[in-house]
Amino acid sequence: MTDLTKVVLQDSEIPEAWYNIQPDLPSPAPPVLHPGTHQPIGPDDLAPLFPMALIMQEVSQDRYIDVPGPVLDVYRMWRPTPLYRARRLEKALDTPAHIYFKYEGGSPVGSHKPTTAVPQAYYNAQEGTRRLTTETGAGQWGSALAFASAQFGLDCEVWQVAISFDQKPYRRTLMEIFGATVHSSPSNLTEAGRKILAMDPNSTGSLGIAISEAVEAAAGDPTTKYSLGSVLNHVLMHQTVIGQEALKQMELFGETPDLLVGCTGGGSNFAGLSFPFIKEKLAGKIDPTIRCVEPTASPSLTKGVYRYDFGDTLGMTPLVKMHTLGHDFIPDPIHAGGLRYHGMAPLVSHLKELGVVEAEAIGQVECFEGAVRFTRAEGIIPAPEPTHAIASAIREAERCRESGESKVILVALCGHGHFDMGAYRAFLDGNLEDFEYPEEKVREAMEKIPAVA
Amino acid sequence: MTDLTKVVLQDSEIPEAWYNIQPDLPSPAPPVLHPGTHQPIGPDDLAPLFPMALIMQEVSQDRYIDVPGPVLDVYRMWRPTPLYRARRLEKALDTPAHIYFKYEGGSPVGSHKPTTAVPQAYYNAQEGTRRLTTETGAGQWGSALAFASAQFGLDCEVWQVAISFDQKPYRRTLMEIFGATVHSSPSNLTEAGRKILAMDPNSTGSLGIAISEAVEAAAGDPTTKYSLGSVLNHVLMHQTVIGQEALKQMELFGETPDLLVGCTGGGSNFAGLSFPFIKEKLAGKIDPTIRCVEPTASPSLTKGVYRYDFGDTLGMTPLVKMHTLGHDFIPDPIHAGGLRYHGMAPLVSHLKELGVVEAEAIGQVECFEGAVRFTRAEGIIPAPEPTHAIASAIREAERCRESGESKVILVALCGHGHFDMGAYRAFLDGNLEDFEYPEEKVREAMEKIPAVA
Repeated sequence: MTDLTKVVLQDSEIPEAWYNIQPDLPSPAPPVLHPGTHQPIGPDDLAPLFPMALIMQEVSQDRYIDVPGPVLDVYRMWRPTPLYRARRLEKALDTPAHIYFKYEGGSPVGSHKPTTAVPQAYYNAQEGTRRLTTETGAGQWGSALAFASAQFGLDCEVWQVAISFDQKPYRRTLMEIFGATVHSSPSNLTEAGRKILAMDPNSTGSLGIAISEAVEAAAGDPTTKYSLGSVLNHVLMHQTVIGQEALKQMELFGETPDLLVGCTGGGSNFAGLSFPFIKEKLAGKIDPTIRCVEPTASPSLTKGVYRYDFGDTLGMTPLVKMHTLGHDFIPDPIHAGGLRYHGMAPLVSHLKELGVVEAEAIGQVECFEGAVRFTRAEGIIPAPEPTHAIASAIREAERCRESGESKVILVALCGHGHFDMGAYRAFLDGNLEDFEYPEEKVREAMEKIPAVA
Repeated sequence: MTDLTKVVLQDSEIPEAWYNIQPDLPSPAPPVLHPGTHQPIGPDDLAPLFPMALIMQEVSQDRYIDVPGPVLDVYRMWRPTPLYRARRLEKALDTPAHIYFKYEGGSPVGSHKPTTAVPQAYYNAQEGTRRLTTETGAGQWGSALAFASAQFGLDCEVWQVAISFDQKPYRRTLMEIFGATVHSSPSNLTEAGRKILAMDPNSTGSLGIAISEAVEAAAGDPTTKYSLGSVLNHVLMHQTVIGQEALKQMELFGETPDLLVGCTGGGSNFAGLSFPFIKEKLAGKIDPTIRCVEPTASPSLTKGVYRYDFGDTLGMTPLVKMHTLGHDFIPDPIHAGGLRYHGMAPLVSHLKELGVVEAEAIGQVECFEGAVRFTRAEGIIPAPEPTHAIASAIREAERCRESGESKVILVALCGHGHFDMGAYRAFLDGNLEDFEYPEEKVREAMEKIPAVA
């Protein structure tokens, strides 16, 4: 153990390969099924939407896949990211626990998202794609893809949920600074959008509708592809540079984590930090507790059911086996927009079923209380999503204060909250409320999911 | 020369002493005068407002002053800051110039300001101060002092110009997250505020009024002191860790700058990067051009007069010899709030008179054009203030494209623009305008300045 505050690595220390957890799993994750035939889908089914390199990564059994040079060149704009010891927070909590955090907020758009957006844009550019489409809610993912597209000369078109487009203009501005075209969704540009507007001309939109629009725009044009910011295997794999860096940095700190915590929406941030540590755990070298933290308002891992369901609200995607609240789940309006999703990445869900990772749900008021304590101590304002991981770490540190244990806790701090100050304003003004997702709603939702033999 | 994208330094490489330029000046800067007697002021005159350690630093002739250990401990939360080679911008500009930038946006509040706020809070805490007061416009400086005060257990009270308090709630939220109390200025809490409100109950405030309120609140209470974020010698000196780090980083890149550019409002960002290079220049070791860049709307160095004037609008402060537009200068509403000041740091003014540094004024539309080009290439959104330095660097890089010269340009990128997206929105919508400060206004303003023999 050292007295360092942080460990920073040089350009040359960015991992040169992504870690693919699939060959190391005790049993393989169930296959993705065609929504019509309920048979496993093949590469050709996905080819209209994704470049072949990403489709191959999705099903690869190679343990490591090289990061292409041009992707490394872009990663160097902000990677490796720093790993900090939160000494001031430990002191404020009067805990014997050692709290570390891996911080992804220094990226071009302030979150871990560009770490997958960049290779996705690269492989698309390699295979001749000219335009990428995607959906975005508050804009975290849309801005990451806008940045990445700019690096490889691709056009980027983003369908942003109407209510965010109108009420949160700052991330839209960010996407436009990077040269992207942003549409309010539902839009008149797609069949899906026009259908919704015909039913409700004042629709404020949803992520499900925006996905349908972005997918439709890509499927109808051979030089356009679609890009997704979480859930899929290749997306999670790209994020593993985070955990590989953290393994090295923890070693330089001279400590081994007893607990890893990361927030989970689709699962990519959590997977990015944890999968390289899970590799060591499955190999019997270390034995940390590995914990997903989700909002009580969107508790797919703690209250959802593990079964085949659609990835989108309208039921257009393949069926994936995952923890789900049902694909027509409508989340309460919590501030952690990135965690308001009905399902969980199949790989994270599978690890939960195997007992390799555990899950906890926390309400947003406790999360923001923890975030303010964290910011006063550490000087970094977390995005609403990672406040869930911070709150869980604080719970653990407080248990250590009672028990006297010096547990080593590693937190995935996946982004800053500079574009979420409205949420902090609401917290400081006492205007935040908690939401509990009722069990009976989950049971109702399950009835609408197609049964898979 | 290397092929690195950035050079990051470790915790242990933070400079352990501040560089004081005063003993190295070819001639001393003129003394600060008492506003009544027009005689040089002594330490006792400043004691009601500042702790003695800072007053002594203000007049010190020591070339280096040690950074206290507890200040270094806080610096380690974000320092050393990275130095980048802007290879993608060079490519986008098709220039043979080599463009580097030293980035201060990774600090707790996103600018260079905490680098002086922290030692100011520390020395105050050491000498028994319980509360710090200050003024702020958009909130850059107020949030830095709020953060620093939280680190040393001081209360922090900020008078924020009313129009920003109402229209830009995000930095106020940031100050409150760090535990500061923020008042809309003019307020009912001070004699100065009540006077203004009696004349105009709907006053939207000004930096000059806010200074008067913060100074009055400090002067009337022995456990309260006042804190200033720029202009003064000790403030500029604290920022010199920036330039010392950059000297080392440029050496690791294997290059020597031909041009340094920094934006100037009060002068602290510019001084922070440039003074350690000026030391080398005055010693004859290097010979870069060193350029201040200011807005055409607030051109103290390019259109102002070098003479004794007040630091505040109401004429309560000592008289300092500086480039000034007159202390009752009312700046046009440009977005670079931190550059809307009538005077310039006495040390920077003196160096300008000596011909050691030069100055240039640029309009905000060109600055934002440059900023968008920069962001698309480099992935970092600059605050409105450093867009001035970027615009000047782009001008130079374009001249290099014509001349074929491979000049090495080093830019002071003093903060990010995450809280200034409204300005970018206005730029993208074509709603930004330029302002030119008319010469005759400067001549009129000079008549209101007391004549000093």
